[in-house]
Amino acid sequence: MRIDALQYCNYSEKIFRQWREAQLDAVHVTIAYHENFREMVANLEEWNRYFERFPSLIFKGTTAADVESARDSGRTAVFFGFQNPSPIEDDIGLVEIVHQLGVRFMQLTYNNQSLLASGCYEPVDAGISRMGKEVIAEMNRVGLVVDMSHSGNRSTIEAAEISSRPIVITHANPHAWHPALRNKSDDVLRAVFQSGGMIGFSLYPHHLKGKSDCTLESFCTMVAQTAEKYGVEHIGIGSDLCQDQPDSVVEWMRVGRWTKQIDFGEGSKAAPGFPAQPEWFEDSRGFNHLHRGLLEVGFSAAEVDLVLGDNWHRFFRENFSAINS
Amino acid sequence: MRIDALQYCNYSEKIFRQWREAQLDAVHVTIAYHENFREMVANLEEWNRYFERFPSLIFKGTTAADVESARDSGRTAVFFGFQNPSPIEDDIGLVEIVHQLGVRFMQLTYNNQSLLASGCYEPVDAGISRMGKEVIAEMNRVGLVVDMSHSGNRSTIEAAEISSRPIVITHANPHAWHPALRNKSDDVLRAVFQSGGMIGFSLYPHHLKGKSDCTLESFCTMVAQTAEKYGVEHIGIGSDLCQDQPDSVVEWMRVGRWTKQIDFGEGSKAAPGFPAQPEWFEDSRGFNHLHRGLLEVGFSAAEVDLVLGDNWHRFFRENFSAINS
Repeated sequence: MRIDALQYCNYSEKIFRQWREAQLDAVHVTIAYHENFREMVANLEEWNRYFERFPSLIFKGTTAADVESARDSGRTAVFFGFQNPSPIEDDIGLVEIVHQLGVRFMQLTYNNQSLLASGCYEPVDAGISRMGKEVIAEMNRVGLVVDMSHSGNRSTIEAAEISSRPIVITHANPHAWHPALRNKSDDVLRAVFQSGGMIGFSLYPHHLKGKSDCTLESFCTMVAQTAEKYGVEHIGIGSDLCQDQPDSVVEWMRVGRWTKQIDFGEGSKAAPGFPAQPEWFEDSRGFNHLHRGLLEVGFSAAEVDLVLGDNWHRFFRENFSAINS
Repeated sequence: MRIDALQYCNYSEKIFRQWREAQLDAVHVTIAYHENFREMVANLEEWNRYFERFPSLIFKGTTAADVESARDSGRTAVFFGFQNPSPIEDDIGLVEIVHQLGVRFMQLTYNNQSLLASGCYEPVDAGISRMGKEVIAEMNRVGLVVDMSHSGNRSTIEAAEISSRPIVITHANPHAWHPALRNKSDDVLRAVFQSGGMIGFSLYPHHLKGKSDCTLESFCTMVAQTAEKYGVEHIGIGSDLCQDQPDSVVEWMRVGRWTKQIDFGEGSKAAPGFPAQPEWFEDSRGFNHLHRGLLEVGFSAAEVDLVLGDNWHRFFRENFSAINS
């Protein structure tokens, strides 16, 4: 299996064909940054139209079995997630509704404080809120995975403790490798892995050592060191690929409706848009380079398969439905 | 199988237990009269809480196989429908979304003109609108059944012609038996049946000959005459039971937000609330009386099974999913 545990592209037939060239059996796509419930549903409608237009390339995925069907039929199963809990508004009943609509991952925060927890850009992280505790329990009940990719350290560690099921970081890298605000410290990684969870390593240049100039060897060595330290079973890919997006989209991601100012997030005034991808991961076909690069730093073929998708596939099987269903 | 193809009760454990006493394997419940999309979702959330609280009595049904599971596990499968297209707002993409949320029936109108067609209380019925044609095609595609219970004659006959799949009247009776505005003329019934569709006979007093005083024999004789005229395969029950509802609910059904006046619908100023049920159908357990009554007017045991649920079960099997899925 090959699985990319996070993308947010400007989707098109071209990209869906690249998924096939990359042998991606499943991709987790973001369908909300700041959308409320109704706006998120409009994004689902857009995906339904993609599924209707390109049935030979893609279909909606909701279970691990869908990843297997995708592999067997030469297509890609598309899994949905939110990078912000905004689509559930202030209504815990929407947790089960969005799961019924097929959503499988929800970040408790984007970069800011939410109703549930704190984002990694907040000066103070108060941990998991009262509603946050209730929502984590409901997410655990229905099989909606807690994703803390953009959350603060305290919130993440508390979420790992509170959650009765594994939590994940779908897209980030170790802070020790590249000290970006969004990359994760050892204590955060340990908490996530102790919960039984996973990390998806990011190919977003701001998360890479050397940014756009990061080498395949440097990235794969980081993967190997993390595997050695924490165990290969916790490791996958979440590329954070934002292919073909106009700069207006990065502004929506960073600013939403929460400020009248411009916030540059991981960018800067001098470089406000999307940074250039490393030349070995310009699109999903970079998975083929990763396959070679991981072998070259000493992973066995079986371990490469685990990292490029089999670990996420196992995680999907165990975490996408109610415990007793 | 026993299936009631329409109820709108003030649900409670008492009513769910009566469903079991009535041996109801499935009930189609109305979850919207005038609600917009978000308000309808709140009603779905309420049902999710019922399912969580009473798992030994009820579960959410979306396929004919769920009716069989219900029978085999001694529970009742609850199917969702709208009596008005208000939850899809002006957005055709919501047709597939509501189907994905489990909705299986949608009336193109309640009593008034809608974006799609005309209701039976309108002085002029212009038939199916431009959007109505588009929505019928989309409903056909995804497997959302067109229900014309409250629509005007022209709209109903046109819907039967336009729809590529069978349309239904979930709850009404023949106009020839009792000339209520909501009951259906022969040409309407013929159009529905020629589409391959069904009628669910109503036990709502305003639809009954003699209203609250209607006898079991009169009702069952009407069923027999309809079966003789059109074929028993088109016939089921849609009781329109509104059990334990306060009068404020009948006002919401009739008035919604469309007028500042009071509209009495099938009632009157002197009798604005819910009428009394006939004593042989005070709640779902009336199905047991119907079983006896239908045998007494000459139906065979196998025919009684068809009328009390097997016909609807066949209809569910053929009409609740995309044609090629």
